[in-house]
Amino acid sequence: MFTRYAPELVDDLKLRWTRLQQGVRATGADALLVGSNVNLLYLSGRIFMGYVYLPAEGAPWFFVRRPCGLAGANVVEIRKPEQIPEFLRDAGLPPPARLLLEGDDLTFSDWTRCAALVKGAAAENGSGLLRQCRAVKTPYEIQVMKKTGSRHAAVVAQFASVYEPGMTDQAWAVAMFHLMLKAGSLGLFRIAGGSMEGFMGTVLAGDNGGAASPYDFALGGAGLHPSLPVGQSGIVLKEGMAVMVDIAGNFYGYLTDCTRTFAIGHLAPKAVAAHQLSIDIQQAVAAAGVPGARCEDLYTLALKMADEAGLADCFMGLAQKAKFIGHGTGLVINEQPVLGARSKETLEAGMCVALEPKFVIPGTGAVGVEDTFLVTSEGMRNLTPCASELVAL
Amino acid sequence: MFTRYAPELVDDLKLRWTRLQQGVRATGADALLVGSNVNLLYLSGRIFMGYVYLPAEGAPWFFVRRPCGLAGANVVEIRKPEQIPEFLRDAGLPPPARLLLEGDDLTFSDWTRCAALVKGAAAENGSGLLRQCRAVKTPYEIQVMKKTGSRHAAVVAQFASVYEPGMTDQAWAVAMFHLMLKAGSLGLFRIAGGSMEGFMGTVLAGDNGGAASPYDFALGGAGLHPSLPVGQSGIVLKEGMAVMVDIAGNFYGYLTDCTRTFAIGHLAPKAVAAHQLSIDIQQAVAAAGVPGARCEDLYTLALKMADEAGLADCFMGLAQKAKFIGHGTGLVINEQPVLGARSKETLEAGMCVALEPKFVIPGTGAVGVEDTFLVTSEGMRNLTPCASELVAL
Repeated sequence: MFTRYAPELVDDLKLRWTRLQQGVRATGADALLVGSNVNLLYLSGRIFMGYVYLPAEGAPWFFVRRPCGLAGANVVEIRKPEQIPEFLRDAGLPPPARLLLEGDDLTFSDWTRCAALVKGAAAENGSGLLRQCRAVKTPYEIQVMKKTGSRHAAVVAQFASVYEPGMTDQAWAVAMFHLMLKAGSLGLFRIAGGSMEGFMGTVLAGDNGGAASPYDFALGGAGLHPSLPVGQSGIVLKEGMAVMVDIAGNFYGYLTDCTRTFAIGHLAPKAVAAHQLSIDIQQAVAAAGVPGARCEDLYTLALKMADEAGLADCFMGLAQKAKFIGHGTGLVINEQPVLGARSKETLEAGMCVALEPKFVIPGTGAVGVEDTFLVTSEGMRNLTPCASELVAL
Repeated sequence: MFTRYAPELVDDLKLRWTRLQQGVRATGADALLVGSNVNLLYLSGRIFMGYVYLPAEGAPWFFVRRPCGLAGANVVEIRKPEQIPEFLRDAGLPPPARLLLEGDDLTFSDWTRCAALVKGAAAENGSGLLRQCRAVKTPYEIQVMKKTGSRHAAVVAQFASVYEPGMTDQAWAVAMFHLMLKAGSLGLFRIAGGSMEGFMGTVLAGDNGGAASPYDFALGGAGLHPSLPVGQSGIVLKEGMAVMVDIAGNFYGYLTDCTRTFAIGHLAPKAVAAHQLSIDIQQAVAAAGVPGARCEDLYTLALKMADEAGLADCFMGLAQKAKFIGHGTGLVINEQPVLGARSKETLEAGMCVALEPKFVIPGTGAVGVEDTFLVTSEGMRNLTPCASELVAL
């Protein structure tokens, strides 16, 4: 298919197309037209300017608007998307009567332009199908997630080495971002949907751990500026503070998520206990997280453990609580499934899920851990293994 | 209006609303409903989760879905957007017959949800109006752009200090990103439209300066990975290479753009001449860039100067050429206007425009400069002043 690609990547892409085509057929649609960067990357192994046209049966077509690394029989150069229907007709392909487009990813304007390509076709939202498909990683993707997790965890283990007493949360954050970039992270932090934003991750110190954010992350933090209200707030790190570091790893286009908590001097006993409980909850959820497990049940299990320990009031935030304890990750940091209150999803082997049962202790800060796990038939396997206890600074 | 805001920011926001309301009335619409982060920031001075409802006349309403720094008489807490029409009715406001929504910013799904809020209303695309309004900065925004440019230029002047012989382009890029973050940049690089992406900026060394990218930047670069095909490519910096550094500054939510070129040892005479020509073109365009100047004419002027010097073939790229030599900048790096081939825009006082006439010399690399200018009645004023000659490394 793609002449310059490694055979194992081509085989893996074929598997992605096949899985997606099953989904397309299940919806009764004739084809899927993809134009968003993340889904182009998923379907072709790279970002390019153009579209992938995946019919319900048969090979996909790659319509390329600018030169890129794609080469092969099904790669077609175009100047504008309006040439796509013309090409399909000339190639003897029947025009789709029902066409799936990315309703949650394309802007209204782009959707309108794409929907007008095929006269008389009904355009329907295929974003959910793509998300569902992306949630279960293919063998190649699992290898990439494993490599990413290892490289990520190796950087996390160095975080304490760049801490200096008297630093602000931001100064330490910058030193850790620097470590992550020096280790080869591409830095880009992709999030699905237009509403959440972030730089490379967050460092939450002391009571900033409980500060509400407009973004739907597990914990917020006030941020440095109203234009990016999340994460570190510029405060000086002080004795008795817990500092939660949640910086993503992106070494090959796929994101792993890992959080560790650092203690400046001695923390309040409640914070120390809550941190251990986070580790216990994560382990319990990981053990229960076999294929077929209901995501809502895993969330309930976590909530129950926090409740039984008398820490429900500070679980997943204070005034503003996150309603989930885990989420899929991969090409974006917020892949499916969501391990949350009203989740209807069940785990499948091959899913990659970040588990982050976190607590906020007033006067001390946010404590807990997060790791990215691969769902296997034996339960969840940690892809970001590194020491999880509180790190004394 | 906003109880916790500085009076000068409140006054400035009122000016933005008034300008935008003139535009809303000119389209014949009754109101504008905004939900994208950049436009929320523009209309309220901060990012929040929610919506701004700006009627064609009268005060705007701020519908807030999560706690945030907004407080005041017109700030209304809601759980979901479907409560907005209900609120407007109870407040005695007439339902809009024609409602502007952000067609180029909202996803199709979000647009559909918002368009359904007002039964029977016609939804029309207001993104262009917002872009047009944002292109001309208000007094408060001009102050922010000036402060941003000064801080940005001060970091650019330090770039050479972190260069070490034998580095890769990426190692030097990381060292410069680190400088920028240490100096207080928020790091986030906002780009309008879903198709372009970037981390903090690019470093183009040697022939990578001419490598095509699927993104619509002035110059591309192959990038480090197919998941982010832009910028540095991991090559070792060597004698005879030009290295073009284009890293944005974001200190208060507004972006300034500035590019400087570095010479490793001696560069080919053609590259040295092209760099000087870039400076000359930038100065000529800046001098001609008075209010009322046609953007297309400024592009033509640049092209003519490159042509007369016999350097048209390597102006703005080689095989893949950018069709513009400048662009607006502000809340996003690609604001209006575009100084390009088919631009119908004219300059107005208060616009902030990055001018980047760049050349790619085969065997040497990309040369040239970029600065962010403020359009004033006396022509363009450089907001990112720092030495523009080739910097010998």
